[in-house]
Amino acid sequence: MRNIKLTIEYDGTRYSGWQRLGDSDKTIQGKIENILTQMTGTKTEIIGSGRTDAGTHARGQIANFKTSAATSLPEMLEFLNRYLPRDIVIKKVEEVPERFHARYNATGKKYSYYIWNAGVPSAFERNYSFHYSDELDFELMNAACLKLIGTHDFIGFSSLKKTKKSTTRTIDELSIQKEGDMLHFTFVGNGFLYKMVRIIMGTLLEIGSGTMDIETIDEIFERKVRSDAGMTVPSQGLFLDEVYY
Amino acid sequence: MRNIKLTIEYDGTRYSGWQRLGDSDKTIQGKIENILTQMTGTKTEIIGSGRTDAGTHARGQIANFKTSAATSLPEMLEFLNRYLPRDIVIKKVEEVPERFHARYNATGKKYSYYIWNAGVPSAFERNYSFHYSDELDFELMNAACLKLIGTHDFIGFSSLKKTKKSTTRTIDELSIQKEGDMLHFTFVGNGFLYKMVRIIMGTLLEIGSGTMDIETIDEIFERKVRSDAGMTVPSQGLFLDEVYY
Repeated sequence: MRNIKLTIEYDGTRYSGWQRLGDSDKTIQGKIENILTQMTGTKTEIIGSGRTDAGTHARGQIANFKTSAATSLPEMLEFLNRYLPRDIVIKKVEEVPERFHARYNATGKKYSYYIWNAGVPSAFERNYSFHYSDELDFELMNAACLKLIGTHDFIGFSSLKKTKKSTTRTIDELSIQKEGDMLHFTFVGNGFLYKMVRIIMGTLLEIGSGTMDIETIDEIFERKVRSDAGMTVPSQGLFLDEVYY
Repeated sequence: MRNIKLTIEYDGTRYSGWQRLGDSDKTIQGKIENILTQMTGTKTEIIGSGRTDAGTHARGQIANFKTSAATSLPEMLEFLNRYLPRDIVIKKVEEVPERFHARYNATGKKYSYYIWNAGVPSAFERNYSFHYSDELDFELMNAACLKLIGTHDFIGFSSLKKTKKSTTRTIDELSIQKEGDMLHFTFVGNGFLYKMVRIIMGTLLEIGSGTMDIETIDEIFERKVRSDAGMTVPSQGLFLDEVYY
């Protein structure tokens, strides 16, 4: 069997997320599997590097699938982009060793989160950022980022239930760039718990706007209680940029 | 009567263009007039700086309206952005002298047109650019821009019927910037005829891809025949950036 790796870009606005739900076709996985099944003539399932929530976007989601079809890689790329909806684009199709597994082999991920930090909203960024008009203290937020970088038990920054699996993760980069009225937050780490990026974002915003003390971060690491952390910011500001292997 | 000037940003994707069509509410003008009528309690009409076609966007469309309502400017801004659909945003509300007329007083306009110049399309730019994958010769296109800058009769680059009104316009700036896979064309001039930007764009693409000689531009100025020029590129790559007064 051939093992094919896909690099996928999608605008998540119209979808209920990555993961296929029964026969529903409102998911990214479902849409791609339907077209692959047409292409190969055999029911084909894909393995994603991980899920993304409803409304969340991807610039570099990775998935793989096994097939015995003889279709060439350029033909696959052409077929997929011809029949997929225009808000899902296959950027790259590669043949990989049979043992490659998009989820198990992932060693890290990069996410972006965008805040539209202006009084008046943006007509173009409405589905790609969170409109937050409060004034933000960048010095405080940068200091908070430094506290979050490193290896910690992030269970307090997740909506996971208690679990026997390790909830320790390492954040290698957490930085803020100001691009006009847009704030671009970059997260790089070896893995992220369920809703972890969005809850960290909510915590950073509460610290930046002065409604939460920066020391609360230490308390969340110690007490491991989700309700100590900030709000979960909306999914539409979140982009899965890259998966590392 | 007070005279109020609006600076408007809109994502034209869902609309049939700027200009109100009867009681239809699929137009930008219609949407804004409906909310203004609610706000003032009196049927209110707005004057735009000019029309934009279905699917065309604006970052800085200008309109004005007369009203005897006492509503303050910040209240107007708040009311409009609260009740308008999220793809139409009022960026600024200003009180202007009674003689100000958004169309008659405009002395120039700035437009952008975007070409997604890559083999594979973009999920995010699909409604904001024209996907054109042919390789383009920038030296030739820049030389063509230089020929177009200046004062000319642009009737051959328009889908206007013959008219008694002058079809002479001055283009002050026509430049190309490459931003990754995106090409950004900037047009600044004292006025643009119907579909002029999109027909000039089609002509530049045909010159850049080698299917049209650069000398054809001189012929179009001389013969003044629309069919000599290039295709009309799609409306979704076009943005009205600014109106000058």
